Amino acid sequence: MKDRPVVLKLGGSVITEKDRPLTPNLQAIGRLAEEIARAKVSPIVIVHGGGSYGHPIAKTYRIAGGFKDQAQLVGFSKTHEAMVSLNRLVVENLLDRRLPAFGMAPSSFILTSKGRIQVFQGELLTRAIKTGLIPVLYGDAVLDTDQGFAILSGDQIAALLAVKLKAERLIMGVDVDGLYDSNPKTDSSARLISRLTLEEVSELANKIGGAEVSDVTGGMLGKVSELMAPVARGIETVIVNALKPDYVYRALKGEKVVGTRIEA
Amino acid sequence: MKDRPVVLKLGGSVITEKDRPLTPNLQAIGRLAEEIARAKVSPIVIVHGGGSYGHPIAKTYRIAGGFKDQAQLVGFSKTHEAMVSLNRLVVENLLDRRLPAFGMAPSSFILTSKGRIQVFQGELLTRAIKTGLIPVLYGDAVLDTDQGFAILSGDQIAALLAVKLKAERLIMGVDVDGLYDSNPKTDSSARLISRLTLEEVSELANKIGGAEVSDVTGGMLGKVSELMAPVARGIETVIVNALKPDYVYRALKGEKVVGTRIEA
Repeated sequence: MKDRPVVLKLGGSVITEKDRPLTPNLQAIGRLAEEIARAKVSPIVIVHGGGSYGHPIAKTYRIAGGFKDQAQLVGFSKTHEAMVSLNRLVVENLLDRRLPAFGMAPSSFILTSKGRIQVFQGELLTRAIKTGLIPVLYGDAVLDTDQGFAILSGDQIAALLAVKLKAERLIMGVDVDGLYDSNPKTDSSARLISRLTLEEVSELANKIGGAEVSDVTGGMLGKVSELMAPVARGIETVIVNALKPDYVYRALKGEKVVGTRIEA
Repeated sequence: MKDRPVVLKLGGSVITEKDRPLTPNLQAIGRLAEEIARAKVSPIVIVHGGGSYGHPIAKTYRIAGGFKDQAQLVGFSKTHEAMVSLNRLVVENLLDRRLPAFGMAPSSFILTSKGRIQVFQGELLTRAIKTGLIPVLYGDAVLDTDQGFAILSGDQIAALLAVKLKAERLIMGVDVDGLYDSNPKTDSSARLISRLTLEEVSELANKIGGAEVSDVTGGMLGKVSELMAPVARGIETVIVNALKPDYVYRALKGEKVVGTRIEA
């Protein structure tokens, strides 16, 4: 590829109403599509999460735990279909702004093993980028060699794409300002960490260990652990608040923006 | 695979209102889902066409002719998105009857060259069948090594799947009773051909040759030529009228049914 692409992840809690099943945040989707169009970054690949589209159905049918009985198969498909409908909203909003967004279904070309990506048939994705399209992927219900099926997060896909495509930059758009030294939702003295090294991420992970039930960073540690592979390969990785106007725009342009930058 | 699957193609002119853009034939989709559920054939793979979903948008943006300018990329994606929305209707109707239908996006794992399938990453599809799912594919706007992109027909996909999966039977559900010796829509003396050998198909193709502008068989010759590969490999191949109740059901059960059987 001539130019190294930017990989942009849009969190499920950004593009959906977290607490209302199957409810998109159309205002956020529209604004983000506009920011992406205005930033004119090319090539770019977009991955989005499921939020209130994926989780409720996946939970009802216990998809994340893998195949236990035949009745789950309908739920597996329904989880995927819900994600497809959310993907169509994102793609349509981008198309409306004349961006050649192109929905690609992870479950049609990615296979996991115990929930981790094992087979990634990326030829079509690479070719889509070369053709000038903007692939738009999503967290999906996928087949799994070990447990029959699994839930593959958009975070894992975005991190893998950043590595595989040797991305220029990986931007994680979330619903908070970044990583905190304690949970900002319960601790008013929590401070935003603007820079974090791989070593500090490991320390943070160890500190939490088995003792604490909840993730003190405000649920961000799982996300950060996905980012370790791209960061270790020298890919510029930043977590920004995608609910705040122009944060994603600035991250796309490589401008200064509030958030957490993770470094090797 | 333990059992050889049945491949069922549902024509775009069956599941959509041919003359009304983006209008599904919900009555036909519902009835066919019921017939498929009642037939209890397993494993089974379903492929459907585009009808009035795919063709109008593809035509507007001249997708079938390949990449000429950047503006077509939006049309390429819109063609795909229209097919996804039709696929979702088919899948939902099957799920409603407790069938574990699973939509798979051809453009995410099939690459063509001059409109003919060149790369077919079928690992996920095979695994989906083994898991107990019913893959539901569709004619799609796909990337093409030679012309940038192309329209890949459901007929071509169905024929390839029949060969690759060593299908027990390939059923082509169309909007007429089968292949005629002349066009039944303009010639009242046209007679249905109930059996046809590969040799006779070739003769028919030669007879039409370059002299005649239209396809005297009623537009079925292109379809029949796709079927030559599976037929040559000994796969039982039959064309039936999917608009007539229980024709597809009987074909699925291997029962006697009005139609055209093509033999080696």
